[in-house]
Amino acid sequence: MTAVSGEIKPAPRKRPQRRRLQNPNPAMRVRLMEAAAELLRRQGLGQLRIEELAREANVSVGTVYLYFDGKDDLFIQLVKEFTERLRQRMSDADGGEGPALERLSRRLAAYLDFVEDNMDGFLHFRKGGALDTNLGPLELWALDVHADDVRPLLEEAIAAGEIAPADPGLLSQALVGVIQHIAAHWGETGARQPREEIEHFLRVYTTFGLNPAGDRTGGAA
Amino acid sequence: MTAVSGEIKPAPRKRPQRRRLQNPNPAMRVRLMEAAAELLRRQGLGQLRIEELAREANVSVGTVYLYFDGKDDLFIQLVKEFTERLRQRMSDADGGEGPALERLSRRLAAYLDFVEDNMDGFLHFRKGGALDTNLGPLELWALDVHADDVRPLLEEAIAAGEIAPADPGLLSQALVGVIQHIAAHWGETGARQPREEIEHFLRVYTTFGLNPAGDRTGGAA
Repeated sequence: MTAVSGEIKPAPRKRPQRRRLQNPNPAMRVRLMEAAAELLRRQGLGQLRIEELAREANVSVGTVYLYFDGKDDLFIQLVKEFTERLRQRMSDADGGEGPALERLSRRLAAYLDFVEDNMDGFLHFRKGGALDTNLGPLELWALDVHADDVRPLLEEAIAAGEIAPADPGLLSQALVGVIQHIAAHWGETGARQPREEIEHFLRVYTTFGLNPAGDRTGGAA
Repeated sequence: MTAVSGEIKPAPRKRPQRRRLQNPNPAMRVRLMEAAAELLRRQGLGQLRIEELAREANVSVGTVYLYFDGKDDLFIQLVKEFTERLRQRMSDADGGEGPALERLSRRLAAYLDFVEDNMDGFLHFRKGGALDTNLGPLELWALDVHADDVRPLLEEAIAAGEIAPADPGLLSQALVGVIQHIAAHWGETGARQPREEIEHFLRVYTTFGLNPAGDRTGGAA
């Protein structure tokens, strides 16, 4: 697990830091982030230019640089914000009560809702996820955040005998890894397969693996 | 699933194609690929310069461009070659005989051997895997190749009742997705966890998931 605490920012480069605002305007930051999310959805990170972002947000290029160190920093801030929104939605869906597999099922549904609502952004995030940060590759950072969120739930479930004993660190990584990969595969194939089939498959697979035994309802209706 | 047949190359750009050799020299191609693999292992794709590769291989920059369209093409050819070597090792390990879960276990061991032998290259591949090609993101292409290889084995196992019925396309994607993610997590954390623990975890998790029941030996010794 890479360190997930502390500020996440691009891995250090050798150029000097630009001037930053003493008192950034939160409304301006939101405006820039929204414009960036929109451009990213339309065209991806590779094509995104700071000049174009300034035009989209109707501000000067200099203003953009007062809020972000550049394209990589902007992308990282966006991923961080979307990760927080997703965490909130999964935590709300979890609700903190009921058997672990049911709570995991509710978290999975919230995750797939979020991916469906933001599919273009999600696929661009995957493509930009190799970006190096001070905390390691961006995508692995985001998966570490989710793995850390779900790990206490898995530990609790193991202690209660609801799921089989296993290394909780690897178990939480396996869970978020397989779900994210299947979601990416689903998105890259144009989401041709119905959402319910994807959700049902993930619920059953994460619960039972390849095992031929078991009642295979996937832990929750 | 993205199309995995046909030539894989960088997604088309608007610049004209460079001149290519009518009769490329296979030994020169091997020499360039070996130099590139070595540079990639040492420093990663982001830092790699064609000029440096030429120096490492002791040829002119012009010669490199006779064999590769540029850095992206070179990286794709490298990934393609390593993917082929890995497929061969997994196919040899599989052996084509015995119960499906045993064959999958042997394939898993061969995969982890390969990752261990080429860890730096593997992690750089992950970081460069977002590269867009004419067949989609490079990393998803490579995973599709492996998923396609394992799919007939899963179909055979489902037909024989060795594993539970499930969508074989999603099942093969889940299998390669979770294994690759755990291998990347293992590598990014400096392979601090013993290889046997990683292998045992993957064998048990892919077979049983979170399910508390079952004999949990992971399908094979």
